[in-house]
Amino acid sequence: MDLLIQRVRLGQDICDILIQEGLFARIAPQIDVVTLPRVPYTLDGTGMAILPSFANVHAHTAMVLLRGLGEDMPLHEWLNDIIWPLERRLTGEQIYWGTLFGCLEMIRSGITAVADMYWHTSHCLRAFYESGIRVNFSPPDILSDDPKALRDLQRDLETHLELAQSYPHRVELSVGIHALYTTTPESRAVCRDFADRHQLIIQTHLSETQRETDECLAATGKTPTEIFDSEGLLHERFLGAHGIWLSDSDRRLMVERGAAIAHCPASNMKLASGIFNDQAARADGLRYGLGTDGASSNNRYDMLSEMRTAALLAKVTTRDPSACSATDIFRTATRGGFQLLRLDAGEIAVGKLADCILVDLDHTGLVPGHDLISDIVYAATPECIDTTICNGNILMRHRRIPGEDDIRQACRAAAAPLR
Amino acid sequence: MDLLIQRVRLGQDICDILIQEGLFARIAPQIDVVTLPRVPYTLDGTGMAILPSFANVHAHTAMVLLRGLGEDMPLHEWLNDIIWPLERRLTGEQIYWGTLFGCLEMIRSGITAVADMYWHTSHCLRAFYESGIRVNFSPPDILSDDPKALRDLQRDLETHLELAQSYPHRVELSVGIHALYTTTPESRAVCRDFADRHQLIIQTHLSETQRETDECLAATGKTPTEIFDSEGLLHERFLGAHGIWLSDSDRRLMVERGAAIAHCPASNMKLASGIFNDQAARADGLRYGLGTDGASSNNRYDMLSEMRTAALLAKVTTRDPSACSATDIFRTATRGGFQLLRLDAGEIAVGKLADCILVDLDHTGLVPGHDLISDIVYAATPECIDTTICNGNILMRHRRIPGEDDIRQACRAAAAPLR
Repeated sequence: MDLLIQRVRLGQDICDILIQEGLFARIAPQIDVVTLPRVPYTLDGTGMAILPSFANVHAHTAMVLLRGLGEDMPLHEWLNDIIWPLERRLTGEQIYWGTLFGCLEMIRSGITAVADMYWHTSHCLRAFYESGIRVNFSPPDILSDDPKALRDLQRDLETHLELAQSYPHRVELSVGIHALYTTTPESRAVCRDFADRHQLIIQTHLSETQRETDECLAATGKTPTEIFDSEGLLHERFLGAHGIWLSDSDRRLMVERGAAIAHCPASNMKLASGIFNDQAARADGLRYGLGTDGASSNNRYDMLSEMRTAALLAKVTTRDPSACSATDIFRTATRGGFQLLRLDAGEIAVGKLADCILVDLDHTGLVPGHDLISDIVYAATPECIDTTICNGNILMRHRRIPGEDDIRQACRAAAAPLR
Repeated sequence: MDLLIQRVRLGQDICDILIQEGLFARIAPQIDVVTLPRVPYTLDGTGMAILPSFANVHAHTAMVLLRGLGEDMPLHEWLNDIIWPLERRLTGEQIYWGTLFGCLEMIRSGITAVADMYWHTSHCLRAFYESGIRVNFSPPDILSDDPKALRDLQRDLETHLELAQSYPHRVELSVGIHALYTTTPESRAVCRDFADRHQLIIQTHLSETQRETDECLAATGKTPTEIFDSEGLLHERFLGAHGIWLSDSDRRLMVERGAAIAHCPASNMKLASGIFNDQAARADGLRYGLGTDGASSNNRYDMLSEMRTAALLAKVTTRDPSACSATDIFRTATRGGFQLLRLDAGEIAVGKLADCILVDLDHTGLVPGHDLISDIVYAATPECIDTTICNGNILMRHRRIPGEDDIRQACRAAAAPLR
């Protein structure tokens, strides 16, 4: 059904916005319903501003099941003693509810697209589809060079792609290479060829920790980025998460290849992994978006918080308060992120995908309202987001999401045995 | 009126909590109303947990009027070209509405006590009193050694104290020494003697910027902390904001004197002033609380955000994910902050001041709910706070604050001419 948003603020103007077939179709001071070919569903935007929604370019959404377990522990102890043993016990059913609940939290903070990496593909895809947001999903391949494992990988990739293609275009598959240190050259070659053949995005963890990066250099004489490049994986469909320990030449190599980074400032801080060089990335023209990472290491799926953290961290790191402005980071979290996911969204403009949020201008953080983008980045909390729309569909209105009470109950029940 | 909170979660238990004369009077599995001497007002805590509220130990609350103006600018340009010229134009009436609206935002994030420093004392005190929260207010003295100015200072201090004392005990005066570099030894001596005579807290800005600290050392051979100490100002009633550039010996001197710091992590990041050494402060036993600073340099009055930022920053700075745990920073923001303000609050225990919040356990960030304190610090946003209580009075219930619509309108009107 067509959607007509009436009397909403766009920039300095009040206007009507018509959405047809998932796209912004018309923006005008006033659109008379009787002039339209079909009667649209109308939505009153009085007292609200329309903004693009956000793309979360790195998440393990289902990890919300583990939120709050094993906090404040050293990284390897946390992974080995808490997270990995728990994850091995997770069933597809638990992951389904975790993913669906995680999507609720994203919708509440205005996220309508996510690049996700997790296990139990069929359960995850179903949850993302049902949530109403867009996903680019990758099962994380962690593999030996055993010939059988390679054949299984090939078969899994095909099965997963077929499964993803059985959904409408909101659901896409990407190829997951968990990380360089958990895969082999042979398995990465299978991933590369499959991704090339189907023009899929490759998701991986890249130079997240100093140890991983140093060990790679010591063992091979090359950085992880250089190895990915030598294997033909570093291209415009390459999305590496974190990238904290990229060298200057790694970064330039990525720029040359058109490869991209998912910058996860809060997760990087919480796990004490280090600080992504936002300033150098901007100076060199490295493409990057913002990611929340999993809820175990953030612990929010909140893009307002992520923008704020990214900007504040860039400022204090460079000792320059003009670094990473509100406008810069807002663009990174919207258009920048959608571009990495090859989605033509992140702007309120005719012809773009109709992914957007309506923010309540009476929200405390948006008052007195001297500068909306600054207020959104620095002052607002998710409570300001009244309405979230993805692909022209209303996912949240007046902060209510249909079915949320049942999903919350089911997520609690799914998580209870993990304690 | 007495207040009985029923069926609320406290730690792992469900209990009833009776508040009488502003204090927690009784905590029991069940309190039968008919056994009480007076009929209390009852409040249903089903599905909620009770936690102590927060103390914001450094703010310029009225600066919410300027939120979003002159963002992302270099510090001195921002102060000289934007903030100070605007502040000089502010009337008492504007400041009254800004303060009152800023208090709304604090109440929405569970803050019930604030150490504030701003101009127009009478208007500020009235706004804080009317908001229902506690304040320790200091007019920031910026003074020459002109004998007339010193006489005026003495007179102002007396007038302000008399004014503060005309309010009930929720409103207290402290002595404001804006900063070492904006005051003289003579004016500080007047402040010291007055504070000693009346046992008042002294609020000041201390080693916030490297420049201020370096210039002091170059001009005097002493650090700002050493000068305050040599002038007899460094004692258990001394509250210095920021303290980023304290030397190791400054910190030890403060510990020895029982002096305290207001740590303002978000403001320090946004203004790119530097990073307070949380690890050393904890190791040395320095007393400190958390402050938001003014809304121009944060831009939130949100203690959940402040706790999270403080913890994440401490972790990444030390490269240790176990640094500044959720429990540590929660205690700092609650009991730690109240102690600096000499208030016996920050704990839900019989005999303590009845300052608390009720958090909605159905809030997205508090699900699945493995660890409430971790969830509050890392995952929750102010939307989780359903009810805020100060001194036994309900300031917010179901996220509604009586009169908030009118206050918001008035704040907008007061801020509009500043654009």
